[in-house]
Order: sequence, then C-alpha cells, then structure tokens
Amino acid sequence: MSGHTIDSNSATIAQALDDVGLTISRKITIGDEFDLLVSQMTHLSANSDVLIVNGGLGPTIDDLTAEALSKTTGHAIEENGEALSHLTLWCEKLKIPLNQANRKQAMLPKGVQIIPNPRGSAVGFYIDHSDCLIICTPGVPSELKAMLEQTIITLLQQRFPNYQPKSMIRLQTFGVGESTLQQLVINECQDWPQSVELGFRAGLPQLEVKLSISDSCYQDVQQHCHQRLRELIGDYIIGEQDTTLGKAVVTALQGSGQSITTAESCTGGQIAAAITQVPGASQVFEAGFVTYSNDMKQQLLGVNQDSLLEHGAVSEAIVQQMALGALERSQATYAVAVSGIAGPDGGSTEKPVGTVCIAWGSKTSLKTTTLRFNRSRQWFQTMVSATALDLIRRDILAIESTPRYFKRYSNHQANTM
Amino acid sequence: MSGHTIDSNSATIAQALDDVGLTISRKITIGDEFDLLVSQMTHLSANSDVLIVNGGLGPTIDDLTAEALSKTTGHAIEENGEALSHLTLWCEKLKIPLNQANRKQAMLPKGVQIIPNPRGSAVGFYIDHSDCLIICTPGVPSELKAMLEQTIITLLQQRFPNYQPKSMIRLQTFGVGESTLQQLVINECQDWPQSVELGFRAGLPQLEVKLSISDSCYQDVQQHCHQRLRELIGDYIIGEQDTTLGKAVVTALQGSGQSITTAESCTGGQIAAAITQVPGASQVFEAGFVTYSNDMKQQLLGVNQDSLLEHGAVSEAIVQQMALGALERSQATYAVAVSGIAGPDGGSTEKPVGTVCIAWGSKTSLKTTTLRFNRSRQWFQTMVSATALDLIRRDILAIESTPRYFKRYSNHQANTM
Repeated sequence: MSGHTIDSNSATIAQALDDVGLTISRKITIGDEFDLLVSQMTHLSANSDVLIVNGGLGPTIDDLTAEALSKTTGHAIEENGEALSHLTLWCEKLKIPLNQANRKQAMLPKGVQIIPNPRGSAVGFYIDHSDCLIICTPGVPSELKAMLEQTIITLLQQRFPNYQPKSMIRLQTFGVGESTLQQLVINECQDWPQSVELGFRAGLPQLEVKLSISDSCYQDVQQHCHQRLRELIGDYIIGEQDTTLGKAVVTALQGSGQSITTAESCTGGQIAAAITQVPGASQVFEAGFVTYSNDMKQQLLGVNQDSLLEHGAVSEAIVQQMALGALERSQATYAVAVSGIAGPDGGSTEKPVGTVCIAWGSKTSLKTTTLRFNRSRQWFQTMVSATALDLIRRDILAIESTPRYFKRYSNHQANTM
Repeated sequence: MSGHTIDSNSATIAQALDDVGLTISRKITIGDEFDLLVSQMTHLSANSDVLIVNGGLGPTIDDLTAEALSKTTGHAIEENGEALSHLTLWCEKLKIPLNQANRKQAMLPKGVQIIPNPRGSAVGFYIDHSDCLIICTPGVPSELKAMLEQTIITLLQQRFPNYQPKSMIRLQTFGVGESTLQQLVINECQDWPQSVELGFRAGLPQLEVKLSISDSCYQDVQQHCHQRLRELIGDYIIGEQDTTLGKAVVTALQGSGQSITTAESCTGGQIAAAITQVPGASQVFEAGFVTYSNDMKQQLLGVNQDSLLEHGAVSEAIVQQMALGALERSQATYAVAVSGIAGPDGGSTEKPVGTVCIAWGSKTSLKTTTLRFNRSRQWFQTMVSATALDLIRRDILAIESTPRYFKRYSNHQANTM
C-alpha cells in the first residue's frame, strides 16, 4: 500500500487462471487491517465463485489471513496437524528450531484443506464458504507459483470443468499508435465480429495488440481478423507473443544469413544491448562500437576528419562513414550507425536537441535518414534505438512501405547511398 | 486482469501520496466492465475522501472511464473545450490528423476540471462527488507520473492542507538485501527512534532505503539515523535521491579527473549504455567496445589467441587483456571489461552458465574477479552490468571493504594485476 513494492503476484494469479479459462472479475488490495480484511472476505465470497487470498500467512503479528478467514467463516482456529508436520519437517531441513512464531503458521480455521508448499514454511489452505471456494496463498512469489502449478490449477479445473481457456493472439507492433489503429479498424473493418475482442497494451516503445475469443468455436473468425489486421498494418507487426524489436532483428538476420555490427554515438550501446539480450544473438552479432567522441569516430571507425569539420558529427555523411567503418572492421555483412543530440545540452538552431542521423544496410546498399525526437534524453535514446532496429527489420524483410514515423519525425524519406 | 502486464502505476500513486502525507486505504482493480466500474466508483466515492481512477482514458472503445464517471455523477457527457484544444495541439505537434477516435478523448462529463497532460493525448480530469474528490488519470506510466508531479500533488496539498509531507531521506544502495539491512538495524540500533520510519523499495538492481519523519521537528533525529545507517552500510550507499549506478560512476570519474572505456562481451553494451544514459557522460566517456566473438576480441582489442586457447574467453586472463586493449585504443585512463556465459547455452561443468569474469581499473592497477550469477539471461546481464559499475565506483572512491556479493557469488577475493 505504500508503493514500496510492486505487486507481481496478482499478474501471476491472473495468468494461471487465464490458462484454464477463468477470468478475474476484480482484485482488491488492502493493508494489514483486520476488520477491513474480514469485511472484504465476506463481501467477495458472497459475490464470487472463487476468492483467492494472497499474503498474510507468515509468522508475524501482521499476518492476519487465518484469523480473518476464521471470523469470516465462523470456523474456530485450531492447530492443524498436516500444517504442523509440514512445519516440523521444514525446520528440520533448515536445521532451525520450531519456535513459537513459526508454530503460529499451523493455527488454521477448522475444516480447511491444506495446499502443500514445496518452497517455504507456510502452507496454503482452502475451504468452501457461501458457495465460494476461498483459497489462501502465501505472498512469497516463488511459493505462490509453486502452489498454483502443483495444486491450485488442478483444483480449479476439477471444480470448473466446463471452462475453456480464452484463446488469444498477441501481436507486437512498433510505429503505429493505439488511436490510429483503432480508427483504421473502425474505418476499414465495419463488419468486425463481436466474438473477437480487440485489445491494446501500450508499452514503450512497442504496442501490443490482442485478439481474444471466449470460445474455441470462434477460432476461424479470430484467424480471419488476424489476417485483416495483417493486411491493414502488417508492416508494423514485428512478431507474435513476447517478441521484442531486438528479437525481430535477430530473427530477420538469421533468416537472411546475415550478421550485424553497430556503430553507436548517442545511443551509447543500447542498440547492441537490445540485440545481445536475445538468446542466440552470437549467431548474428560479433562486435559493436560505441564511439561517443569525434576522436574515437576517427580512430576506431576511420571517419574522415574533413567530413566531420564540414558536416558535423550529427550528419548523414558521418553515420554513413561510421557504418562503413564498422563493416570494414568487423566480419559483419550489415551495419547500423547512429549519431544524434540526446541532450539536455549540445543542440543548435540548425540541429536542435533530439536530432538524430541513422545509417543502415550493407556495404553496397546503405540507407540514411535524419529524424527528430524532441523529448527527454531517456525517451530519445529509447526511441532512437527502437527506430533503428525497426528500420533494420523493415530493410532485411524487404518491406517497401514508408513507416508512419518518417512523416511524424522527419521531413523527408530515407536516402540511399 | 489477464496478467500480461504488471501494475506499477498503483505503486507510483502510493509513493506520490506518501510524499504528501496521504495514505491509501484500499486499491481495487477491475476489467473493462462498465457496470462493475460504475458500482465501484459509486461505492468508493461514498467511502473515501479521494478516489484516484487510473487508466481507461484512451481513444479506444474499451476506454470507459469518462462514461462511467458520467453515470456515477449524473453529469452528462459533452465535448470539453479545453480537452479538445489540447488534442488539437497534440495532433498538430505530431503532424497527425485529429481523427474521430482521438476526438473521443475530449468527450467528458460536464463540470470536470482538466488536468494537463504534457506527455500524451489524453488529458486527466477531476470532479467532486459525494464529498469525494474523484481524479481520473491515464494508464501510460510516464503520463501518470507527469500529472502527479505537475498537478495532482499540488491539488491534493491544497485540498488537505493539514497533512504534512513526510520529510524523507532517500538513499540508493547496491549489494545489500532488504532482510540483511533490516536485521542489521534490529541488531545494531536497538535504540532506533519511533519517529523515524525505515522503509525499503526493492528495485533491480538497486535497493532504495527511505528514512521518513512525519513532522519536521524530528529532523535532527532523522539526520542522526542517516549517520547511523552510513556507519553501518555506507559502502553500499551509491547516492541519494534517484542516483543510478551509472550516475555514481560518472560522478566518481568526474571527481577524480578520469575517463572510462568499456570492453563488453556478455553484457553486450549494457555497461556503456548505463554510463551514456547520464547527461554529461561525454566528459568521462569517449568509446566502448562490444566484442562478442573471440575473433573480435582479438581483432578489435588485441587479445592474444594463445591465451584464448589456454584460458578460454571467460577467464580473468582474457578480461585483463580486453581491458588493456581498450585502454590502449581509447584515450581513457580507466577501463572495465566483462566476459561471461549469459546462457541459456554455452555452459560447461567447469564454467557453468552464469559465470562471469570482470576486470576493472587503470593500466597500472587492474583488478579481476570471477563471479557466478545463476538465474535467467536477463537477470544475469542486469546483475553483471550493475556489479561491474559498483566495482568501478568502489575502486575510484577507494572503498576498501569487500562487498557482500563477493561472498555470495564467488569463492575468492578480487585479484590485482
């Protein structure tokens, strides 16, 4: 409640339930306040088929779940034999004494069923109350995950055999906004079927597009919608599931038998880092250069001093030379080079903060462009890296359309050497 | 609700409120379900002084907040002039047409006050209803943060002038865990004053430690506690406020008049990126090398082929040569080099996945160590980059104690050349 921890458990629970076709209707977080806990347990169990309580099973005084469940259900607290033997074994294993604080974890409402905890001292437990299955789980993420996988999912499948997992197609996109996409669908797909739900999740820099159906009988319609989306914005789809731009580039390079080198100024290594975050990146990436100063652009990449004086470090001429220098010095067949003004200082009237030049391509086909991203330093670096990766992806996959962000962030098209 | 996103916004909101002395009583998350949204808005506004609604302000059909607020308050939806002019300006700036989907974001309940959005298309808004101030905010994290900082915090301070911001000292630490720190304070500071609240926020890789007081009359006690903490864990404190490891390294380098170069294998540019994310990094950083393959370690950094055959790429001998090679080829006085096995493949019995060798120092005083971080590839890369930066910080600041992570992740101390 204080914001000192970010809750990942509720996402873990939601994903597990999603896999068996159950959806969460609401999620409530409250502090360690006994009365509020009891009133919420009472209210929620009266209005739900399942109530999953997470946290509050530990040995300390602010762990209130068992007591609150006792008050909610009217079942008195007693020492639970199964929980106690788990605790005894656990303490023996860790060679620590079974103290009073630990022993508190075996004091549970009468009639609960135990959920084994393979990872920790606190067992989980469940009980039926007002037509609701109340399941109490520990707050430690690894213990929660183990219980979901080993016991709770099976329990729920047995209780709700008629539920089917929601079938979802998740598409990762870059370079098209949520509103543009929605408008496209409204304009172009006026017959969009009700059975296929279109959802979005805006991340930086990617936008996830989701196509969900509640029943597998709609799979054909879902596939049809997927196809329609690919026709509308196919060039912006970088992949399915959790594909990142780095992953898309590695895959494209692998597919075309190419390898890449990076020559970065303003992004300071972020493009290389995005590529090498992908398992198996070594197949397509051998070396990258971070040349932040003009001296180093000359010394490490062979950039021409006269060109630097004539055009300035942030120019298409220089990123072209950086790319060629990197190609020459590595064994790569493909290069990307960036030079820009990340800010907060260093801008001029002609080249304000946010200006960036990018070169990408092979030795014989190198393209360049100048774009302008005028926001914070961090946003600039993130967007420049993402844009560079997307330009590479488009180039290798021979996508010919001009991306919308060219219109948004620049005045002209890409130049080819 | 599907578990595909982890909610960090509620922690952001809680932290912001905490800073002005307000606490959150409960937090409710529901899906895009209109009736449930209205019933919750009604219920919560009747039982709270403030209700902050987050998300659902976007241009798409599943963005229901404005409609739900209209139903809750009984104020009809109308086109809001202020919101519309914001949208118009936003679209002009981005050179995109103001389409119907975007225009939906100006359709708001009559009587709402607008909260400017400096980062995105959707404005926020607020209105009073049943003695509750209802504030609607966008789901995009950066937009939410900007609104909290620029408008909402001030609004709440004006509404609740009797609440005092907690005076807070925030310390960024690396290499010491929350429970270790807590235990240290329990053992060593048995007279820790009640007036100073000790809080933590675990990030990856940093842990933030907060010392809060509810009244400025406790400032002396707070400073005393701050001093005690510095005595206990001073070597682990990398800085105050929002200092990052990259920032701490840049500051340390500036302070000692040094400049750094990086030679990265398994971190693939992340260390260089962390340094160049800091404004003014160009004063201490000119160039970095990402040498992923053995060939490139030889060609770009002059690593010896025989040494590679004898010791393998993941060895202290090789990172030493990488660091020396980078020093020679750049004009830097200080170098860091890393080589390791990020996984999932590439491990052996002797050098399993997670093994990393790090070299850091100047030409005449270069240290090396071998550590093991056996978790996911992403975690490995993050931890190796952070550890390398922390070793540099400790070295330049002449911190002599051995960090705890040496005990945890390795069997021996650092070796000096």
